Amino acid sequence: MENKNHNDVNLLGVDELRLRLSAVCSLMRNCGMTQGLVSSNSNIYYLSGRIFRGYIFIDSGREEAIYLVRRPSHLKGNDCEHIFKPAEIPSRLHARGISVCPQLGFELDSFPWSSAERMAQALGTNVTGKLNLSSILRQARAVKTPAEQELLRQSGLRQTEVYSHIPALYRPGMSDIEFQIEIERESRLHGCLGIFRVAGGEMEIFMGNVLTGENADSPSPYDFAMGGAGLDPSLPVGADGTLIRPDFPVMVDVNGNYTGYMTDMTRCYIYGNTPDDVTKANALSAEICHALAQMMIPGTPASALYERAAAMAAEAGMADVFMGHRSQAGFVGHGVGIEINELPVIAPRSKDILQAGNVIALEPKFVLSHYGAVGVENTYIVTEHGGVQITTAPEEIQKLTD
Amino acid sequence: MENKNHNDVNLLGVDELRLRLSAVCSLMRNCGMTQGLVSSNSNIYYLSGRIFRGYIFIDSGREEAIYLVRRPSHLKGNDCEHIFKPAEIPSRLHARGISVCPQLGFELDSFPWSSAERMAQALGTNVTGKLNLSSILRQARAVKTPAEQELLRQSGLRQTEVYSHIPALYRPGMSDIEFQIEIERESRLHGCLGIFRVAGGEMEIFMGNVLTGENADSPSPYDFAMGGAGLDPSLPVGADGTLIRPDFPVMVDVNGNYTGYMTDMTRCYIYGNTPDDVTKANALSAEICHALAQMMIPGTPASALYERAAAMAAEAGMADVFMGHRSQAGFVGHGVGIEINELPVIAPRSKDILQAGNVIALEPKFVLSHYGAVGVENTYIVTEHGGVQITTAPEEIQKLTD
Repeated sequence: MENKNHNDVNLLGVDELRLRLSAVCSLMRNCGMTQGLVSSNSNIYYLSGRIFRGYIFIDSGREEAIYLVRRPSHLKGNDCEHIFKPAEIPSRLHARGISVCPQLGFELDSFPWSSAERMAQALGTNVTGKLNLSSILRQARAVKTPAEQELLRQSGLRQTEVYSHIPALYRPGMSDIEFQIEIERESRLHGCLGIFRVAGGEMEIFMGNVLTGENADSPSPYDFAMGGAGLDPSLPVGADGTLIRPDFPVMVDVNGNYTGYMTDMTRCYIYGNTPDDVTKANALSAEICHALAQMMIPGTPASALYERAAAMAAEAGMADVFMGHRSQAGFVGHGVGIEINELPVIAPRSKDILQAGNVIALEPKFVLSHYGAVGVENTYIVTEHGGVQITTAPEEIQKLTD
Repeated sequence: MENKNHNDVNLLGVDELRLRLSAVCSLMRNCGMTQGLVSSNSNIYYLSGRIFRGYIFIDSGREEAIYLVRRPSHLKGNDCEHIFKPAEIPSRLHARGISVCPQLGFELDSFPWSSAERMAQALGTNVTGKLNLSSILRQARAVKTPAEQELLRQSGLRQTEVYSHIPALYRPGMSDIEFQIEIERESRLHGCLGIFRVAGGEMEIFMGNVLTGENADSPSPYDFAMGGAGLDPSLPVGADGTLIRPDFPVMVDVNGNYTGYMTDMTRCYIYGNTPDDVTKANALSAEICHALAQMMIPGTPASALYERAAAMAAEAGMADVFMGHRSQAGFVGHGVGIEINELPVIAPRSKDILQAGNVIALEPKFVLSHYGAVGVENTYIVTEHGGVQITTAPEEIQKLTD
């Protein structure tokens, strides 16, 4: 990032901002949206490189972003206006030669109803479902700029390094959660920011999942690939205190957010001997990843990737344990970036078409009866030459050492 | 909790649900709301004792809650209906003799605009700002039932136990974040669920804050009592890698969510000698807590607590460093429970009146120039006899051992 002034509200630098803003404004113009107001932390971060409390006003004709900052007060910049309340916004914009349109786009999928209505009133506009800035930003963010790809590569490198330390963190007699806690610590010591951003507010998770044995098949309310009962009904996902038994795989899928952009990687570990069924399922998962990675060129329908994965699982006679058993997930991959559930969605009825710069996590996993969860997950950048894998820990089941 | 059937959608048991539902329905009737639809995870947890994906329909006249469950599919109960999409809701309710009103309450402060509008359409109703279920649930949740108080007491006990281990976690040469990571691990090993629920979506935090030195005065965009630059502009709060120096206090304020209900406790630690100014500020903070705790009887205005705290800080000549220095927080305490920012708010212009069963965290903290953040924070249950402290680690500055 070129901009080294930490007080500048725009930490991206001029060129990077221009790149992201152009993408957003072009999508806005395509659907007749002349102005929009960004309100969510994730999108404020996308368009400024930092989180602040406030809003970003976008004029798609002028390709201009005005930062409307409530806190903190020390932020500066040509495009920065400090406000105490939304009612001040129209006059601040007016002084810059911008009149607020009668209708402008809001982040309707994340802006709470009462906030959107209050804001519309303060701006003298209406809220209409036809102008949804959420879907525009979701589309823009699906294609990562080279700088964003670099942040994802850095996360991938650090996550891969952490995963290489996982076997040494195990002690016989550990439960899934005890093992997970050591992996969390190792991740944090390597710079993991911990926070796990999920769009939509419905899915909650702490720092990822470690699953072993039958717990993998405990249905969760969340739309994650794998379930798990969790430790408490207030967070019913993941490790539940199950003892890690010899000859049973442990699936590790923990937070890869080292830069504000997160990679997603899953690997399996085992103490003792690896049963043949487990070896086979894991190898098939890796094979599916590789086959799909080759298909990851711009223009490929996301649904084609899912179909290929499902066909490979079916060919191996494993359709009934693919992506879960009691409760099967309806996707095999998803975009990742600032949040864990970005576009494109790799699912049977997805209408998404792959684009260069998409960053996609593939997780063709199995829940074997008796043995539990098995499989790998990798994050890829879509390029003209296929998916470039940025989570590169060895894919074979790793032995846990004493 | 009396109910041991983990498949029952209501994990609270009949009596506890009745208690919570009565409170909600009575508040609904007071503002003319006959029906409401709960949609947020926090309130679904409040009214069922678990998180599921779906909604809870409330009829305030019948004092009835119908659980409308999308996932997981194994949940059961007399009041449980499984749905695939919101459009099924009216017929399911109709079969139970309930007609959906033309207007019903939604959680307008958390329900995204597009979700609220889609839901209203599916139910054949309108959304109106006059019927806000968010504020009703916020009010109901401000008064904790005996069972909720017990969950908070348990969190307080476990958090206190963890804090007693903190001095032994320190190693000379540690940075704030390295120290924090060891505290996170200790907390997790004692059952901390990790997740830190904050209402409103604007404030984000991982597992709490460890602050030392001048970093305490770095303004944060969030409305937390103390700031900190954080490790990355994508999460600008808390520890920033500052080395913990001898004779400089370290303020520890980490996650107390052990039961789905979180307590909030802050203590200071020091390696080496404690400067007099630091001792004095910490003692004043504890004194303010104790003075305010005595005022914590039902009927006391929340603003009176703030005024007393501010007056004590002023009497000691410390008004300018009270609740921050460069950026001062506008409150000295807040309700806690399922989320960290519940009612009542202990602030100068708060209109809240204390009620028996409120659970309040008080955090009269100081940011001393040169030394950084100093002060204690405790969680109290409001009773007829004053605030009962449920976070009971010693309040004096604790020595860090090698």
